[in-house]
Amino acid sequence: MWGRNEFLYRKCVRLVPSRYPNYSTYTLKLPKRSAQSFLYVENTALLPLRTLKSGNHNVCSRYLQNSVAYSSTSIRNLQDVRPIVKTQPEPDCNSYTCRTHSCGELRPENKGQKVILCGWVQFSRLSKFLLLRDAYGLIQCVVHENNVSFSDILLETVVKIEGKVTLRPKDTVNHSMATGEVEVVIEKLEVLNNVEKLPFNLRSYQKPKEQLRLQHRYIDLRFPEMQHNLRQRSYMLHLMRRFLVEGHNFVEVETPTLFCRTPGGAREFVVPTHHSGLFYSLVQSPQQFKQMLMSGGIDRYFQIARCYRDETTRPDRQPEFTQLDIELSFTNQDGVLCMIEELLHNTFPKPLPKPPFKRISYKDALENYGTDKPNLTYGLKFLNIKPFLSDKESDSSVGAFALPYPSKAGKLTAKYKEKIRESTKKYNTKIILPENVSKELGMDVANKLQNNIGQDQSMIIAMGENENACLCLGEVREMLATLLHSMNLLEIKENIEPLWVVDFPLFVKGENGLETCHHPFTAPHPADMHLLDTEPLKVRSLAYDIVMNGNEVGGGSVRVHDVKLQNKLLKMLDIDGSSLSHFLSALGSGCPPHAGIALGIDRLVTLACNAESIREVIAFPKSHDGRDPLSGAPNVVSEEDKKYYHIATVD
Amino acid sequence: MWGRNEFLYRKCVRLVPSRYPNYSTYTLKLPKRSAQSFLYVENTALLPLRTLKSGNHNVCSRYLQNSVAYSSTSIRNLQDVRPIVKTQPEPDCNSYTCRTHSCGELRPENKGQKVILCGWVQFSRLSKFLLLRDAYGLIQCVVHENNVSFSDILLETVVKIEGKVTLRPKDTVNHSMATGEVEVVIEKLEVLNNVEKLPFNLRSYQKPKEQLRLQHRYIDLRFPEMQHNLRQRSYMLHLMRRFLVEGHNFVEVETPTLFCRTPGGAREFVVPTHHSGLFYSLVQSPQQFKQMLMSGGIDRYFQIARCYRDETTRPDRQPEFTQLDIELSFTNQDGVLCMIEELLHNTFPKPLPKPPFKRISYKDALENYGTDKPNLTYGLKFLNIKPFLSDKESDSSVGAFALPYPSKAGKLTAKYKEKIRESTKKYNTKIILPENVSKELGMDVANKLQNNIGQDQSMIIAMGENENACLCLGEVREMLATLLHSMNLLEIKENIEPLWVVDFPLFVKGENGLETCHHPFTAPHPADMHLLDTEPLKVRSLAYDIVMNGNEVGGGSVRVHDVKLQNKLLKMLDIDGSSLSHFLSALGSGCPPHAGIALGIDRLVTLACNAESIREVIAFPKSHDGRDPLSGAPNVVSEEDKKYYHIATVD
Repeated sequence: MWGRNEFLYRKCVRLVPSRYPNYSTYTLKLPKRSAQSFLYVENTALLPLRTLKSGNHNVCSRYLQNSVAYSSTSIRNLQDVRPIVKTQPEPDCNSYTCRTHSCGELRPENKGQKVILCGWVQFSRLSKFLLLRDAYGLIQCVVHENNVSFSDILLETVVKIEGKVTLRPKDTVNHSMATGEVEVVIEKLEVLNNVEKLPFNLRSYQKPKEQLRLQHRYIDLRFPEMQHNLRQRSYMLHLMRRFLVEGHNFVEVETPTLFCRTPGGAREFVVPTHHSGLFYSLVQSPQQFKQMLMSGGIDRYFQIARCYRDETTRPDRQPEFTQLDIELSFTNQDGVLCMIEELLHNTFPKPLPKPPFKRISYKDALENYGTDKPNLTYGLKFLNIKPFLSDKESDSSVGAFALPYPSKAGKLTAKYKEKIRESTKKYNTKIILPENVSKELGMDVANKLQNNIGQDQSMIIAMGENENACLCLGEVREMLATLLHSMNLLEIKENIEPLWVVDFPLFVKGENGLETCHHPFTAPHPADMHLLDTEPLKVRSLAYDIVMNGNEVGGGSVRVHDVKLQNKLLKMLDIDGSSLSHFLSALGSGCPPHAGIALGIDRLVTLACNAESIREVIAFPKSHDGRDPLSGAPNVVSEEDKKYYHIATVD
Repeated sequence: MWGRNEFLYRKCVRLVPSRYPNYSTYTLKLPKRSAQSFLYVENTALLPLRTLKSGNHNVCSRYLQNSVAYSSTSIRNLQDVRPIVKTQPEPDCNSYTCRTHSCGELRPENKGQKVILCGWVQFSRLSKFLLLRDAYGLIQCVVHENNVSFSDILLETVVKIEGKVTLRPKDTVNHSMATGEVEVVIEKLEVLNNVEKLPFNLRSYQKPKEQLRLQHRYIDLRFPEMQHNLRQRSYMLHLMRRFLVEGHNFVEVETPTLFCRTPGGAREFVVPTHHSGLFYSLVQSPQQFKQMLMSGGIDRYFQIARCYRDETTRPDRQPEFTQLDIELSFTNQDGVLCMIEELLHNTFPKPLPKPPFKRISYKDALENYGTDKPNLTYGLKFLNIKPFLSDKESDSSVGAFALPYPSKAGKLTAKYKEKIRESTKKYNTKIILPENVSKELGMDVANKLQNNIGQDQSMIIAMGENENACLCLGEVREMLATLLHSMNLLEIKENIEPLWVVDFPLFVKGENGLETCHHPFTAPHPADMHLLDTEPLKVRSLAYDIVMNGNEVGGGSVRVHDVKLQNKLLKMLDIDGSSLSHFLSALGSGCPPHAGIALGIDRLVTLACNAESIREVIAFPKSHDGRDPLSGAPNVVSEEDKKYYHIATVD
């Protein structure tokens, strides 16, 4: 972002949903000469990211603020992009400080002004020019007299500069900088803090490895991507709060994190107390609390909640994470889905399809894409080939699915075949590669299938226990998508494709009987209540997940509000209700019907920022095994502390 | 709130700071006939609380919404109270639900409408009338035909009612209800959930003891006070976020709670991990993180942060609590104080004096009020009587202070004398009661003092080591205030009196040398730097506290940004810097000068809600000893869990 070829244009586009009229609303009218160009608009370490295709002469963009516009070809400035409506003053980034301006805001109209700027030395040249950086941009400062010297100043030194704004000579105007038409003549330069030798440079083209970045996160945060991601995150959550509080009367309630263990579910961290032998558990979600709030008549609850799960062995998981937790009374599945669609449509910084979003049942997701979180940015849909097969394979629990793909891809290499073999082992499923279809299924069936999928298609077939066959072929599908895309044989869309997966089963078969598919408080599907006693594995639930491009970004359910039904389900799941007596009592005390959802904020912001991992959108993440690269936590604790908490360490 | 003598007037007053033009702004113009009456305006389980004195014909109130107005005498309705400006639609509390209206919103203009309502049976009478309650109000429903029966319905049963709005006959209009002019003729009544026998009734006049309330918090939350407090809290925090994000470009950054121990400070909970012998600590504040964010160029940070302190032995403390944590770069003490004054003035639901708020030095607070958190809602200021005393008491470390009060109070009873005796023991200070002044100090001195304070005043005198004498007399002052107020001899103002206490000492004398007064990252006062090596106890710091009516509601400081100075201070405090190496490295990597503050949200909301304890503004508080009255947490954990975390319980 601080490189070349960039065009910085401050405050060029900004808009929010019309519900919030105090946000500036802009309409971008692109000049005709840009018709052939590709315009990339992004904010300077500030707000959201946006891709605008030209050719559309009225492009609207939501809540972009302090934006940078990159232009690949003809647009060298955005003078023709005019704000149409503007109703609120810009947030003030200079209030309560000793600076008069930020480094990003000076323009020719500031000519002649005395300014005070504070920031980091980004670059210095010839003991005359100094590029000053702060969180809001870059400005060139220049020495005209000999009373100021910074010949030996180290990069990243923190300085305060007093000076006067002047226009740059026409031939030295820098069109790639927002402040490129002006410079500040330094009258006074004060070093506010010195800098020791840094472990890495702040150059985007020589970015250090993640481990080193995390170890020195306080330096790494100065990279524009990290500045952008954290600001994006903050702003998206703020808009979500506005939608919920101001638009829809939700109440944010803070619930405890030190609580008792919830039976079932993930492993929970324990916290020893001064009461000998007694421990808190760190909550894995506010589930029990939000349901008790419903019983308490709070009606519409949300919380951007910190949650804890001791799952450090799973990649891309953090021991603590953030979820947008929502629950409301007197609603149903459609109510929640509709709310989340509007919430996301109004607050997600990338364009989303107009609600309602697509919905698919768990069964269809599995039998068409081989996963409960299908990535719909590309095709590659399964074909159920049971009808094509002869009678002997007609056992209803056995499934047979084909995955057609362009024959042009040619034969799979050994590497891919090995990966497929691994999947077949994992799911105990038979895979038939294209070259073996006629051998395995007979010429007749093979021909019928070929006619069905088209002559330019090959197919991989999975046969086995129905669900396993699907899951196995689902893994093949993902692998194949990457391969085909790399060969230009498959288009993968760049936009976000949200999808609801609904009608999950209520139970799954566990090692010791029934286990819950979502959590034990999920309501059974009313249409399947008659199967609860006889065929519980066939009972669907009122649980739903929201999936974006293959990532599960949230999930929830209609809850059980009838204490008798809840007791029955706990019994079926062999969960001891005694540790839930407070919760069951809440259901029995006049609890309204209610439903809710939780969105995984870390994952959602990762998608919003095009980041590669959730660690890119968390200020101070932990490493894979739960260690803090910065402080080295977890650490040993003193014997005194252990004594106080009545614990001893054992190997 | 559901009692008699009340007048419910929906949406009567609402206003927010002009920065946020999308909030409705109302001006209250009170009718002349109300000139003698006292008007109490409060929102229905929704937003803030407000007390308005009449006599002022243009009373402005900020962001009141869905308000209830109580009138003690003449005002029976508020028809003359007219909204002047209204710019934003009301938040919608019915979206995404199966109801068409809330119970609080029906008015004569809804006559003839078919409505669907959901809520709790508040009251039923003669099998004909049913009072339905939800989070937004009360409405009377009535049976006209025989197709609906609820003769044996239990109170607090959850029902859904379909019906038609009709006007009540004129003589049955209930002026004490917002919906009192209409009723709903029930066409269909459906029980959504039954209710078991409740442990207590939801009658304000027979409120159960706190222990029982906390044990069944899911029922207790239905009381209007709890509904009000939680909604007030949510809304105040939302306005704070708007002020910071939209007004002043702050970024909310979520920082970890699982971290390493910070040397010095409160006891921190430890969290065992799967790594044998290694523990996280639960952070007592995001202090280190926010300073590292400043080094990382985040510039303006805030977070409404969950913090943990294992101080369960102190009353009115919770093991987890919430603070508004703020830090900004390139600022100074005045910058932070000014920001907080504007923040509170714009978001605190009670009237505050216009900024700047009063400021007092730690020394003056001590020598005038005997505490570092003076309550300025009443007088009772000390008189330094050292100048009146003869030479022998002129040792500079010995202080002598008098607390004058009206002689009308008469002689103190034995009970108060005993309390004073306890204070003298605690502070090793001599107290002279009024009747002994001339005996102890001589007639001459006594007469001079009496002339000075006035003949209608008595005085209690404290003499001893300067600080101890002040603190001792400070305790006497508080006790005396309550006594005098009960005798009508002292006015205690009902409004909020905010006060900054500044110029705290940097160090205090601890058992083993110097200890920090605030925390080890606090900057020394620049004017006292020359004393750092020679007389460290005389060095003031750039720490500040904000006090409201005797409660410390926040505190902060300008931080040390120079790594050399920080190392020196750690050494003086005998703190091992090795566990802070990441933090020190952040200071050395080009860290800007910065300062910050943390406001205690639980305490602040308690004051905003006139609540008696912080437990009244926390949805699920713990009891004094850190136990959860609801679930019984902390609990024993399984041997399997202990094994996983490599810990054993010892007695």
